[in-house]
Amino acid sequence: MAKTNGGVVPSSDRSNLIPFSSRLKEGRALALDVWTIFSAVNLPADCINLGQGYMNFAPPKWVTDAAEAALNTVAPNHYSHPRGRIRLREAIKGFYGPQFNRDLDVESEILVTSGANEGQYSVFTAFLEQGDEVIMFEPFFDQYLPSVTFNGGKPVYVPLHPPKDSLTKPTSDDWTIDIDELRRAITPRAKMIIVNTPHNPVGKVFTKAELKAIAAIAEEFNLLVMADEVYDCLVFDGKEHVRIANLPGMWDRTVTVGSAGKAFAATGWRIGWLIGPKSIIQPTLAASTRIVFCSNSPLQEAAASGLELAREKKFFETQLSEYAERRDILTKAFDDLGLKYTHPEGSYFILLDISQVDFPENYPFPDSVLGRGRDFRACWFIANEIGVSSIPVSEFYCEEHANIGEAYARFAFCKDVDTLRRAAERFQALQIYLK
Amino acid sequence: MAKTNGGVVPSSDRSNLIPFSSRLKEGRALALDVWTIFSAVNLPADCINLGQGYMNFAPPKWVTDAAEAALNTVAPNHYSHPRGRIRLREAIKGFYGPQFNRDLDVESEILVTSGANEGQYSVFTAFLEQGDEVIMFEPFFDQYLPSVTFNGGKPVYVPLHPPKDSLTKPTSDDWTIDIDELRRAITPRAKMIIVNTPHNPVGKVFTKAELKAIAAIAEEFNLLVMADEVYDCLVFDGKEHVRIANLPGMWDRTVTVGSAGKAFAATGWRIGWLIGPKSIIQPTLAASTRIVFCSNSPLQEAAASGLELAREKKFFETQLSEYAERRDILTKAFDDLGLKYTHPEGSYFILLDISQVDFPENYPFPDSVLGRGRDFRACWFIANEIGVSSIPVSEFYCEEHANIGEAYARFAFCKDVDTLRRAAERFQALQIYLK
Repeated sequence: MAKTNGGVVPSSDRSNLIPFSSRLKEGRALALDVWTIFSAVNLPADCINLGQGYMNFAPPKWVTDAAEAALNTVAPNHYSHPRGRIRLREAIKGFYGPQFNRDLDVESEILVTSGANEGQYSVFTAFLEQGDEVIMFEPFFDQYLPSVTFNGGKPVYVPLHPPKDSLTKPTSDDWTIDIDELRRAITPRAKMIIVNTPHNPVGKVFTKAELKAIAAIAEEFNLLVMADEVYDCLVFDGKEHVRIANLPGMWDRTVTVGSAGKAFAATGWRIGWLIGPKSIIQPTLAASTRIVFCSNSPLQEAAASGLELAREKKFFETQLSEYAERRDILTKAFDDLGLKYTHPEGSYFILLDISQVDFPENYPFPDSVLGRGRDFRACWFIANEIGVSSIPVSEFYCEEHANIGEAYARFAFCKDVDTLRRAAERFQALQIYLK
Repeated sequence: MAKTNGGVVPSSDRSNLIPFSSRLKEGRALALDVWTIFSAVNLPADCINLGQGYMNFAPPKWVTDAAEAALNTVAPNHYSHPRGRIRLREAIKGFYGPQFNRDLDVESEILVTSGANEGQYSVFTAFLEQGDEVIMFEPFFDQYLPSVTFNGGKPVYVPLHPPKDSLTKPTSDDWTIDIDELRRAITPRAKMIIVNTPHNPVGKVFTKAELKAIAAIAEEFNLLVMADEVYDCLVFDGKEHVRIANLPGMWDRTVTVGSAGKAFAATGWRIGWLIGPKSIIQPTLAASTRIVFCSNSPLQEAAASGLELAREKKFFETQLSEYAERRDILTKAFDDLGLKYTHPEGSYFILLDISQVDFPENYPFPDSVLGRGRDFRACWFIANEIGVSSIPVSEFYCEEHANIGEAYARFAFCKDVDTLRRAAERFQALQIYLK
């Protein structure tokens, strides 16, 4: 039995009595994941964590106030409707309706989910048949892979091509798609395509031209489009965030994913939402209702308050400029060192080109890192010697293409200015390890 | 396309572009569910809701205080570990460890889930192969069915036999299992058995003898046991709540399900937990991590505080006597009318025998009710004429056995005393409709 289970569950007299499902053997579901390898417990105690994408600051007080009010009443402590509390659905309608140029129907076009993650999982549950293919651009948010395979789907990877070496100051716009390559990847089993814009981990904000080309493919091959736009409030430098759902003919085949965690610095609230046509939302509701029944009520009230008051408080404008300042602290530090990186036009990640970082190959790396790409060793070395953690980007690629990701480390700048300044200072010590 | 999809999603020019998964056609996933039929919007405005099992009172202030404190700090607003926040896992260990007579390992034997529902779903995801059979006693908590079929499993039903007609004062103990019948239901594809004690909707608290017999079957056929014990804090009349995980040899094959919502009158917090051996918890963690990533953090802090302080505050003892008082208000009303019901020894439900209720068959019933069992019509009639809503019990049976459930309506007594007294008064008007 231990052998069947890949030896993951340690054997004892009575363990592995019941073999677990074969679906756990796919999609890296039982692999030691990058988040665990680079988690605080495995790194030096004073290491500055720019690895995981969560904030080290609190949500706005005027948003948490609504959760406190909810806790002090009765109904918002109890089951919400599986679609989500009506106040939040109305707030989503009010905030996003104009962005979609639609009078969104709160009963059929909006679904509150237990985080964007559960929303995406429910879409896969609602739409995938065994063997259906889901196209995703690489690098990809690592949860997509097992979420697809758990639901019987098969991931199909299409690369975002990295900036040309000749570029000394690449931006996320220099990561490009090849539409012919996308077309060639499509088989008769293709069912869905995931379009993540702004993109994690690249920071790319897909252009209207790119999205139009993707949309044409989606129409031609009748694909459902999952528009993962959880970083929609973080688009910098005056760049336009185009929603693929708004392109002609795309509403009916597109579900757009949003996140209160990203919007309001509250990644632990587990409140997200899906916006799309009834033909997508209704089956997804049927899936979500069985998976979680409903999402937590008090924090739905908080998210509702956030969306209700955001405009009046100019919250997203202010937050955006704060994030731009955070980003610029890190990019300046990299510039000062002469390091190449991808200037991100969206999201809160920077891909640092680590090819120049020259670490000793006989450094005492743990086994968890030795078996992986060069980026795992580089990130481990930087975390231990410089004191700033990051995430190796090969994790966001399938095995065959992992070598593309090996050139990069992902640094998250969703941290307060002080933390980022301290990180910037520490980076100076990297100078002596550069080629 | 509309035909393929069973006509559930209404057709328009562009709807049903993308067919949804065939898994939604199983397990009643798209059927108009009983909760919607009997929801407040479909019933008279002043109807007293004893249908759905949520409280009309708030969680204790000393529990919600911890959530407020969490909202005002940083980390508890952000991602928790997929296993759950360590404070809650420690609190679960402290509270439940003695009940399992085990020094529970917070790293491998406890998993916090986004409600008990998501925990159960994750166990199915982690352990079921296509075609694996899951045995459940009827009547069953209605979410089991689609949660099993969504994960490729096949439900197998074994009846709890209703009390003999000759009994004038049946208790939940008079709902009995036939172990030979259970044994005959087991095929080579049997993988799991669900044991729900205290039982929803019957209120049955399984006896040690019954659980021993079930345990012997589980050992003989190598079944994983899901012990759904979310009502473990609601066992009345000095009855002993036996945990099947504690029977000899059963720990290694049993996962026990708990719920903060049931324990602390907070059904909308979506915090539950699983307790079991590493060989069950670890694969379930792998599933849950992909399904929801983690559970909401602020309300984990609240649940932790609840478990930490419950003993000192004698919270569960007090709550139990409050629920006993609530139960007795309803049972007295039924006694006064000479109605037969199942006296529940656990949970917060009463099954009323509605055979005696003589409603006019030409009453203006809606279509949603007309197509179903007699209990749907009886519950509709009582809600509309008496002003107290309940849930028809045939919903908790498979189609072939629905007729057993037709004799009962489920009333939830997780409501404040005033509400229950008003309901009891209204019941007097039922007198004229009794055979």
